[in-house]
Amino acid sequence: MKEVINIGLLGFGTVGTGIVKILTENAGSIAQKVGAPVVIKKILVRNPKKARGSKIDADIVTDAAEVIHDPDIDIIVEVMGGEQPAKDYMLQALNAGKHVVTANKDVVAKYGRELFAAAEKNHVDFLFEGSVGGGIPIITPLKQCLAANQITEVMGIVNGTTNYMLTKMTREHLDFDSVLKEAQAQGYAEADPTADVGGWDAARKIAILASIAFGTRVSLEDVYVEGITNVSLEDVDYAKELGYVIKLLAIAKRDDQGISVRVHPAFIPATHPLAAVNDVYNAIYVKGDAVGETMFYGRGAGSLPTASAVVGDIIDEARDLQNQVSSRILCTCFEQTPIYSVEHTESPYYIRLLVQDKPGVLAAIAGAFGAQQVSLHSVIQKRKVDHYSEIVLITYRVLDANLRLAMSTISGMHVVTKIRSVIRVEAEEID
Amino acid sequence: MKEVINIGLLGFGTVGTGIVKILTENAGSIAQKVGAPVVIKKILVRNPKKARGSKIDADIVTDAAEVIHDPDIDIIVEVMGGEQPAKDYMLQALNAGKHVVTANKDVVAKYGRELFAAAEKNHVDFLFEGSVGGGIPIITPLKQCLAANQITEVMGIVNGTTNYMLTKMTREHLDFDSVLKEAQAQGYAEADPTADVGGWDAARKIAILASIAFGTRVSLEDVYVEGITNVSLEDVDYAKELGYVIKLLAIAKRDDQGISVRVHPAFIPATHPLAAVNDVYNAIYVKGDAVGETMFYGRGAGSLPTASAVVGDIIDEARDLQNQVSSRILCTCFEQTPIYSVEHTESPYYIRLLVQDKPGVLAAIAGAFGAQQVSLHSVIQKRKVDHYSEIVLITYRVLDANLRLAMSTISGMHVVTKIRSVIRVEAEEID
Repeated sequence: MKEVINIGLLGFGTVGTGIVKILTENAGSIAQKVGAPVVIKKILVRNPKKARGSKIDADIVTDAAEVIHDPDIDIIVEVMGGEQPAKDYMLQALNAGKHVVTANKDVVAKYGRELFAAAEKNHVDFLFEGSVGGGIPIITPLKQCLAANQITEVMGIVNGTTNYMLTKMTREHLDFDSVLKEAQAQGYAEADPTADVGGWDAARKIAILASIAFGTRVSLEDVYVEGITNVSLEDVDYAKELGYVIKLLAIAKRDDQGISVRVHPAFIPATHPLAAVNDVYNAIYVKGDAVGETMFYGRGAGSLPTASAVVGDIIDEARDLQNQVSSRILCTCFEQTPIYSVEHTESPYYIRLLVQDKPGVLAAIAGAFGAQQVSLHSVIQKRKVDHYSEIVLITYRVLDANLRLAMSTISGMHVVTKIRSVIRVEAEEID
Repeated sequence: MKEVINIGLLGFGTVGTGIVKILTENAGSIAQKVGAPVVIKKILVRNPKKARGSKIDADIVTDAAEVIHDPDIDIIVEVMGGEQPAKDYMLQALNAGKHVVTANKDVVAKYGRELFAAAEKNHVDFLFEGSVGGGIPIITPLKQCLAANQITEVMGIVNGTTNYMLTKMTREHLDFDSVLKEAQAQGYAEADPTADVGGWDAARKIAILASIAFGTRVSLEDVYVEGITNVSLEDVDYAKELGYVIKLLAIAKRDDQGISVRVHPAFIPATHPLAAVNDVYNAIYVKGDAVGETMFYGRGAGSLPTASAVVGDIIDEARDLQNQVSSRILCTCFEQTPIYSVEHTESPYYIRLLVQDKPGVLAAIAGAFGAQQVSLHSVIQKRKVDHYSEIVLITYRVLDANLRLAMSTISGMHVVTKIRSVIRVEAEEID
């Protein structure tokens, strides 16, 4: 048994500060659980003169090698964020025989394979609970508690910024640009909001979740990504009227042939458990052959929630160190399941069109859909806008490729003024 | 590394059948995760002639000792249910140096201390994820993922039968007796429904959850229990009108002085995450100082969901066996925190009274409340019933003891015909 578990912290920003706070304030109970105190020995920072909120006992250093190669340090915790130099530091640490804990979704999603291989080669652990869903326990539940299951579906609201925005559009009837400005003012959205509103942050997270859930490596480039920039207030209103809610979903599904992994806005039934997940909250819904439907809910970001997950991993690793065991749970990507391109996925669709207000238009549009085997579940001919009519359609479950062909025909029809929205419907069987 | 992990199964009912099904159907992926096949070697049954649904390779035996003392068996899985002989068998297995996995809430809630002590003495593990919340991962998340936190609150819908009944009362406007009959017809409620509707099943589960969350042993007798038998359709209607939902909650809270653990029906705001948990689904809401609010949702009972949790524990233990480690996570009840009696707990209350329809009655009642420091947040004087009036009150946050004194005075007032309902309000700050 070790008398103390020494941590080397790479990065001292939002999450790093949270980690220091938790390890200080809850030092007593953590030491009881581990059987030894867990202490941060060194912290790597860029600028050692920058004022820190709390008094720190750790050595503040600017040379990563001083942390990574300190023989007294057992676990390297990377919370710098960004791809580089974070990835190189983690790789160096693994190759130096250190266990690594990270909350870095960018690196895990992009370089997961390489890092896991390095961990395995060096008989050390690589833990990353904090990389998805902030404080929500999801990686460990998937790897341990639900290990008995064949997971068939993971569907998550994993980006707090866009969920905050969509919640505000729905509740306060504000348009996209206004809620984006408000989210930026509140600090929920960055000055360049592309990673969030473009769906890229969610894409990284679903790549990580899909890899674990399905036991096959899914990378960022395997994920089909659509953001929420085209979601309008009108769509939010129609969703409500039709008994749905619009959410930015990160979806991974598996069937006998392969896997589909995608991020896009979607209509989900207002009664679905994910529909009640609002504001900056995240939730991950998981379907397994034994457990059925299950869901994990909580704060998907922030200093203390993310630090909660990171320190959870630290405690897990510290318990292993105390038992002189490592690599209890290795990389579980045993399979090489093919990944569908989005054209081969199926779902019902919500479509909103602006058309000329004259007889025969609806018949012509229905004909174009029919020619591509797209059947219509319901048609709402709604508002008159000057000389135009707005038509809202919900299709039955159709192949994405067929819908694309139909929409291409429709967009070329002279009676069709504008295709306003094309949004998938999820979590409902319309077939 | 073992070439095979042998299981001895005690009991072959609903959950046992599910375990056999999972270990058979998902044998390949489970063997990959563990590094060796996980095989049921022997099954203890009462009546070996009783037809079984599936073809079984395991030996069917009627003598428990044959399973418990089989030197090839590494893990004993107890799914017989009930207190005895399940508890004795588990104790014998632990003392024989076997790891034990169980889904038996009765035994864990009542004899947890003794079983943990036996596990610790014999350097083996005692795992019980399936004992609370069926397939929902909650014990492992509390012991591992959230280990960084000081947990301050656990609030769960942990009994599927009563949640089904309350959901049906709310949605279909049926009274208690009708929904109970329907639940019995559906197989969701037993012929003697006392354990469920009386709150005792939930009480066992919250005793287990509180012990883990707060690191102090909480037994069934520490839990204050009120069932749902007095919840009427009128209360369900008032709840809806006032923006609440009635749920049977299992609550454990900690503050600086101690712990309160209780099961009772409660009004919760319709916007609370637990309010959307309907039918037979369960959910456990957990609040920690670092993670903030988090929630775990899924099927709280049933053959495959519960078996999912049990097999998850089996895989966990098998991974430990492959790494020749045990007791990685021991009993975490380090504390001996005092437990409040219910009189020392505080909450707002919903109260429904039938009173005489004449001047000054409300003033008299308000006076009786005021004399015990019970302040009223809102008063609805609603229906006339013959010569009587129905008064509905919501109090501010008050001490339970004070409310009891006030209700005692009020019940003795000649203008008060009947105290119809007294239900706590939870998860809302009315103070």
